[in-house]
Amino acid sequence: MAFELRATDPLGGARRGRLTTPHGAVETPAFMPVGTQATVKTMTPDDLEGLGVQMILANAYHLYLRPGHRLIADRGGLHRFMGWDHPILTDSGGFQVYSLAALRRVSDDGAYFQSHLDGSVHLMTPELSIEIQDALGADVVMAFDECVGHDTTREDAERAMRRTVRWARRCREALRATPSALFGIVQGGLFPDLREEAARETVALEFDGYAIGGLSVGESKDEMARVIEQVAPMLPAAQARYLMGVGTPEDLIEGVARGIDLFDCVMPTRHARTGWLFTSRGRVVIKHAEYATDDRPLDPACGCYTCRRFSRAYLRHLFVSKETLASRLNTLHNLSFYLTLMADMRCAIDEGRFESFRAARLAAYQEVVE
Amino acid sequence: MAFELRATDPLGGARRGRLTTPHGAVETPAFMPVGTQATVKTMTPDDLEGLGVQMILANAYHLYLRPGHRLIADRGGLHRFMGWDHPILTDSGGFQVYSLAALRRVSDDGAYFQSHLDGSVHLMTPELSIEIQDALGADVVMAFDECVGHDTTREDAERAMRRTVRWARRCREALRATPSALFGIVQGGLFPDLREEAARETVALEFDGYAIGGLSVGESKDEMARVIEQVAPMLPAAQARYLMGVGTPEDLIEGVARGIDLFDCVMPTRHARTGWLFTSRGRVVIKHAEYATDDRPLDPACGCYTCRRFSRAYLRHLFVSKETLASRLNTLHNLSFYLTLMADMRCAIDEGRFESFRAARLAAYQEVVE
Repeated sequence: MAFELRATDPLGGARRGRLTTPHGAVETPAFMPVGTQATVKTMTPDDLEGLGVQMILANAYHLYLRPGHRLIADRGGLHRFMGWDHPILTDSGGFQVYSLAALRRVSDDGAYFQSHLDGSVHLMTPELSIEIQDALGADVVMAFDECVGHDTTREDAERAMRRTVRWARRCREALRATPSALFGIVQGGLFPDLREEAARETVALEFDGYAIGGLSVGESKDEMARVIEQVAPMLPAAQARYLMGVGTPEDLIEGVARGIDLFDCVMPTRHARTGWLFTSRGRVVIKHAEYATDDRPLDPACGCYTCRRFSRAYLRHLFVSKETLASRLNTLHNLSFYLTLMADMRCAIDEGRFESFRAARLAAYQEVVE
Repeated sequence: MAFELRATDPLGGARRGRLTTPHGAVETPAFMPVGTQATVKTMTPDDLEGLGVQMILANAYHLYLRPGHRLIADRGGLHRFMGWDHPILTDSGGFQVYSLAALRRVSDDGAYFQSHLDGSVHLMTPELSIEIQDALGADVVMAFDECVGHDTTREDAERAMRRTVRWARRCREALRATPSALFGIVQGGLFPDLREEAARETVALEFDGYAIGGLSVGESKDEMARVIEQVAPMLPAAQARYLMGVGTPEDLIEGVARGIDLFDCVMPTRHARTGWLFTSRGRVVIKHAEYATDDRPLDPACGCYTCRRFSRAYLRHLFVSKETLASRLNTLHNLSFYLTLMADMRCAIDEGRFESFRAARLAAYQEVVE
């Protein structure tokens, strides 16, 4: 895997790059829709291509439990299994063990956890996580990390960070002789000295790219910004930087401004299913009664299929009637909003006007958010 | 509305026709997917066009309760509301009052019922049913009828049939000066003399087309066939004949053989959502473990998107994982199966070989059904 840094904004940290993977190139900064269970919920691969999605994220934890990584490997790998012939990044399972599994017990060996599906007990180790992601055939494999909450004690954050570094070394050992790239993850909670140690130690292991983990777990916007501002400059400029699990449209703009190249988040797809829609005029909660007789498109400034063909009144009817077409049309729109934002940012960086774009866009969002 | 009878099979009753509506022509025999709540579940209008759907069915009962027929009329009618610019037939609500509503009480006035959504009490009359369907802007409006179960007493069946005829007259009076067609419905349960009286009285009212109602309510295949064989020849040959709520692929073939032109049924779409899939090799219950490692397409003989792009193993994974993409891909396939069957039948009639097609296809189904 190669990352090519093509331009840096003259006034700030925003970067334009290109990540080249076995399944093609990804123009960065890029947003990866989340395809947890080998599907971006409600979307076909053709839908994703039509939206301009370049790379998706899939999940080692979920696919290990169901249908099983060996089953997918026997089907020719995840790309073939799900009909997606473009880049895939897989999450290592660290975050899911932290957020989904019950009765987890973490030791240096790995993390014992109970499946959220059937309560069965499993031990996820760095080696198993790499085995899973390698079997899936991911273009980018993530190191297995230990996540902690934003309100964790310093002692716990330190222990988890050091363990994450030790596990990163084991992941580096475990993944050999594949065309996949391996990204290390910088943990350390909200403690600057821990983040510094984590960044230094992780970079010393020489990964193909670096992620900032442990954010979007309940901390404030300022706390998130401080961590990114501290860590991003410590990562090698010539390699891709990935901010995991982030975030809102504003978070993406602020992340790009601080030199982030890759993002993933369930927000556009999950919010779509609960009827919370992103538009150029602010959020639309489609179930609200005011939309029942609203003949306008969801977002007059949007060119997606949903906005071209349907009214807010129809989208509200579908949502209130619990029709699954609501989830589908809403997902199409929210993803279109996110992907258009990323394309706009890439264009702004290319043209050397990212900082003015950033200011204008954030001001526009502020104006309309209630 | 005009119905043109273009060909009749030389050996049997199968007919090729063309129904011309304000929103375009429908080549018959035709199958109408069911779009109960102003959406064929999981499908966009573009999907339906891609499948070759000519006409869909929507439901007066459901749309009256939610979002309300006046709201839809104010949005420019149902076609515009749901983004479907092709013919729509609306069911009158008679069957839903029978099958869905609680505490119904039927008198000559109409049917009092409680909404299945919120328990509110409503009186559906022939006049209201017509008002609803007219407000929706249906191309084909159905008369409001009283349905009875297959095990009803003769006395009840007779009373319901006579009431249906009286209501049919009121519907005829109520629908004036619109380009919509109005179809009468022949009831009478499984009693030949009642069916005969119903057919004679309904035809005397001179509708634009005629439906056979009260089937697919639990009777045997033989009983269904006997009713169709008796009633169809009593209906004017120059007008469209619609068999309501039917049925399996075999039922469609047998219906066409007996001179039926139009069908609707939830079976392909509802079965899709429960993972029961129609294929040229018989039914596939996709959750079965045998499909977990099956790399073949669902139906190797099918050219739909689902069969072109995905394996049975992937479809099973989506279904078992409760992903809504399962419902979508399964619906696409099942509808493709039904619509391809109808197209094959139209072609066979055009080429004067329907009876041999019928025999071959039924034999093929028999061979594979367990």
